[in-house]
Amino acid sequence: MAKVQKLVIVGGVAGGASAAAKARRCSEDVEIIMYEKDRDISYANCGLPYYLSGVIKKREDLLITSPALFRRRFRVEARTRREVTRIKREQKTVVIRHLETGSLEEETYDRLVLAPGSRAVVPKVPGVDLPPVFTLKTLDDTDRIFRFLEANNPRRAVVVGGGLIGVEALENLVLRGLETTVVEFAPQMLTFLDWEMAEIVRRHVEAKGVRLHLSEGLKAVEKHDGAFVVKTDHDRTIPADLVLMAVGIRPSVELAREAGLVIGASGGIRVNEYMQTSDPEIFAAGDCVETINLVTGKPTLTPMGSAANKQGRAAGANALGRSLAVKGFLGTVIVKVFDLTVAKTGLSEREAVDEGFSPLVTYVHPGHHAGYFPGAKTLNIKTVADEKSERLLGAQVIGEEGVDKRIDVFATALYNRMTQEDLLQLDLAYAPPYSAARDPVIIAGALGQNYFRGDWRPVPPGELLEKRRRGEPVTLIDVRTSKEVTRAGKIPGAVHIPIDDLRSRMRELDPERETILYCATGLRSYVGERILSQQGFKRVQTLTGGIFSWMFELEPGG
Amino acid sequence: MAKVQKLVIVGGVAGGASAAAKARRCSEDVEIIMYEKDRDISYANCGLPYYLSGVIKKREDLLITSPALFRRRFRVEARTRREVTRIKREQKTVVIRHLETGSLEEETYDRLVLAPGSRAVVPKVPGVDLPPVFTLKTLDDTDRIFRFLEANNPRRAVVVGGGLIGVEALENLVLRGLETTVVEFAPQMLTFLDWEMAEIVRRHVEAKGVRLHLSEGLKAVEKHDGAFVVKTDHDRTIPADLVLMAVGIRPSVELAREAGLVIGASGGIRVNEYMQTSDPEIFAAGDCVETINLVTGKPTLTPMGSAANKQGRAAGANALGRSLAVKGFLGTVIVKVFDLTVAKTGLSEREAVDEGFSPLVTYVHPGHHAGYFPGAKTLNIKTVADEKSERLLGAQVIGEEGVDKRIDVFATALYNRMTQEDLLQLDLAYAPPYSAARDPVIIAGALGQNYFRGDWRPVPPGELLEKRRRGEPVTLIDVRTSKEVTRAGKIPGAVHIPIDDLRSRMRELDPERETILYCATGLRSYVGERILSQQGFKRVQTLTGGIFSWMFELEPGG
Repeated sequence: MAKVQKLVIVGGVAGGASAAAKARRCSEDVEIIMYEKDRDISYANCGLPYYLSGVIKKREDLLITSPALFRRRFRVEARTRREVTRIKREQKTVVIRHLETGSLEEETYDRLVLAPGSRAVVPKVPGVDLPPVFTLKTLDDTDRIFRFLEANNPRRAVVVGGGLIGVEALENLVLRGLETTVVEFAPQMLTFLDWEMAEIVRRHVEAKGVRLHLSEGLKAVEKHDGAFVVKTDHDRTIPADLVLMAVGIRPSVELAREAGLVIGASGGIRVNEYMQTSDPEIFAAGDCVETINLVTGKPTLTPMGSAANKQGRAAGANALGRSLAVKGFLGTVIVKVFDLTVAKTGLSEREAVDEGFSPLVTYVHPGHHAGYFPGAKTLNIKTVADEKSERLLGAQVIGEEGVDKRIDVFATALYNRMTQEDLLQLDLAYAPPYSAARDPVIIAGALGQNYFRGDWRPVPPGELLEKRRRGEPVTLIDVRTSKEVTRAGKIPGAVHIPIDDLRSRMRELDPERETILYCATGLRSYVGERILSQQGFKRVQTLTGGIFSWMFELEPGG
Repeated sequence: MAKVQKLVIVGGVAGGASAAAKARRCSEDVEIIMYEKDRDISYANCGLPYYLSGVIKKREDLLITSPALFRRRFRVEARTRREVTRIKREQKTVVIRHLETGSLEEETYDRLVLAPGSRAVVPKVPGVDLPPVFTLKTLDDTDRIFRFLEANNPRRAVVVGGGLIGVEALENLVLRGLETTVVEFAPQMLTFLDWEMAEIVRRHVEAKGVRLHLSEGLKAVEKHDGAFVVKTDHDRTIPADLVLMAVGIRPSVELAREAGLVIGASGGIRVNEYMQTSDPEIFAAGDCVETINLVTGKPTLTPMGSAANKQGRAAGANALGRSLAVKGFLGTVIVKVFDLTVAKTGLSEREAVDEGFSPLVTYVHPGHHAGYFPGAKTLNIKTVADEKSERLLGAQVIGEEGVDKRIDVFATALYNRMTQEDLLQLDLAYAPPYSAARDPVIIAGALGQNYFRGDWRPVPPGELLEKRRRGEPVTLIDVRTSKEVTRAGKIPGAVHIPIDDLRSRMRELDPERETILYCATGLRSYVGERILSQQGFKRVQTLTGGIFSWMFELEPGG
């Protein structure tokens, strides 16, 4: 390879800035020029929503570095307010537009790194160009919203979209004191979650006073008598002093596409694991590329700051002849939603089914640390495993404490292609303030072992609901204590037999009939299942996750 | 295998109770008898220290289950205050002494599970039988201490031993308002840590007002003029209204040894991965057994509640003909020490050296989440990897927040035999309240990659200290800002060249001389190392972990 004398980088935030810094650490000689459309480089993209509420107090706190520092420390020429508009691959030059003056210039390169990121999708409906309508993607966007908030002191906000950005935005708008409504086209928020897990989030968000309109599309933003309203396809009219569009993001691939680089089916620039595009002299990193999902092996988009940093670092090194691989991602996400932390890694149940897996689904609802140590908070954990290979495919975790720990353990397990049963072998750290003698991840492993060894037959709550809707003859047994049943109610039609009476009252039951047991979380009903299945009940199962996972009707005090 | 009709279990706390419950889930028919010396079964052993301070308020909270519940739910006959004194393997019986009456009885078994746990070691010095001297191992112990505390309201406590139990005890005695002194024979607390990591704990404990006497042995407990004192082998006399012996625990293997079962070199009962002893009809679980360390492959003791639960569950099932494996442990430990969480998994540097590894040591000191999000706390992470295989061997993490998460990720990585560089590939959950775009674990992975690709040559602080003691000619360069140096001081003899001036002032330096750079945490000095090494400095290195890892002399404002 001829010596690389000049590296040009398109984009100066996570991917681009990482590429530039790493390239300099690889070579003191190479000339590095970085172009950024915005006014700032390397800012804290993921912190932007928190600046709106004042959780992050100062704008400076969002600036991780500056062009001046980049010049001093890394001898990187960071040129801001300049947009690269074209790549001439034959000449190995890029065309740049100066956004202040409109003037064009051309710059040569030996190697090019593309890190233009992604852009917020704005729905094509009337009124999206009205003054109180914003997107929240860049620091410039944030500055605009912040100025609007300060100048107009809006009282009512509508967030269009209940995904990651929408949820972070709504929390921070509520914290700022705005009455906030969310309009989401899908039947649930946070569509990376399975429906019943998203239900936990919905209930929490509504308990915080947020109005949610699910399965409802945006029709228009209109101005009526000097005030703005959002109209939905349910003919709903929602007053809105501020409208935030958070319907999604799209990778910025126009530059790459026009230059003839291969764009993948996911919509991102195709790269190999060295972040090299179909042109070996052009690398790409960040939201604009597609990456391998390590569970499915298929290319997908991973628009996360953590991914952009890794990819940028590799792209910067590899553009100078190194070979640092980025093997792929798991779709790990985490988001704070008021008092809850909501996280996922790998595949949801729905995604697993879509990928052709026959999934084993388990729920566990343990405390985040030992129950006898003060302050234990309930975790809601759903795992998805492959019935055939027994491999863990994904996990969803929601709770107030200890969520991030468990999702990172699951992510590390997924990276290593562990089976669900393997989780039981992990030597996780235990002391009462941090975990229980059986950590929630260990419990999930034990459930996997129970299932795959034939000791446990779980019914997911949705399947039980379906059985009941279809009118299948099922004996449903609530094995909780009388006190629990009186306080919390039971599923209509369930027979109440406390677990400790099950052996003596077994004669009341028909061993030929399909029998499903449940309790609060699934532990006692599993004990009951073991009792009955050893006594000749051939078709006995446990409602996995118990009442905690049951999102449907309950009969109070039943 | 003949049908197992009767299972006898020795010990009713973590291992024994887990074995009993699992055995019942495996078989409704088998008769299960469990013997326990203490008054209670299945209590929260790990919560005992917290009951002394009132962090755990009620004694009942420590009782996870009771003989009555065990009988009702699991049809397990739990016989308390009874000690199994002998195993007659030929007859397949055990001899039991009733501790209230002294009477002996004999019971037959088809299968036996041994889970007698461990006992507190009491040093053989004069006075250990005096009234204010206690151990803290069982609930009975705890009851005795609690009654003593309530009756005598002691003012001054001496804790003998600075290991896990000693540290948990001292925190809770301080929380209860006692002036507390620790006497530890070793030159550091928490000997599972490397010395410099234990230093962080020492400083924190002393800052909380605890007096520490390290490298100091207990000589006697004495009564002088109606008051008690502890005497050490440094001829120190420490007034002590309460003395807690926490010098260690020893597996209870007498019963097994007398029965001729194989005891391993570690001192624990030898079992295979199915928890089966050298007698195929006798299984064992918990503190009394030795287990495989998954890093070294060697047998070791793992006296943790989490291990006992897993092993007991497997032993209970396998005694009834199942084959559930417990593959081993990593020596994962975690302990709360006032505001700090202190954790370790795998091998320390010292242990790695003892095992014949040539370890790569790295330190990182990042925030536990994004620095721009309020409340970030510094993590102190030390990783140890094998120079040859590049495999991660262990990690130590100390900090106020996010410690348990990182240690569990490291533990999961160790279980999967990941290399240090592999850590970089993990798709860990990132949002500003939980992590940084480069998670601390990812940073450790990047350092591994930098090292094993030849881009980074770290010097551990201890090695730098040694070089200076030996008078080796080393140019030491402090690359922090002038402000930082003025505020925090520098290492004596260091030249101060701010990182951003390094290129322009390079001519002041001798490229032939060994050159070591440092900054606050090791990041900027690594950038400096890359600059110099590319400019012909052949022997340039970075002080890994920077000033944060430097536990030795500093020149204030130097």
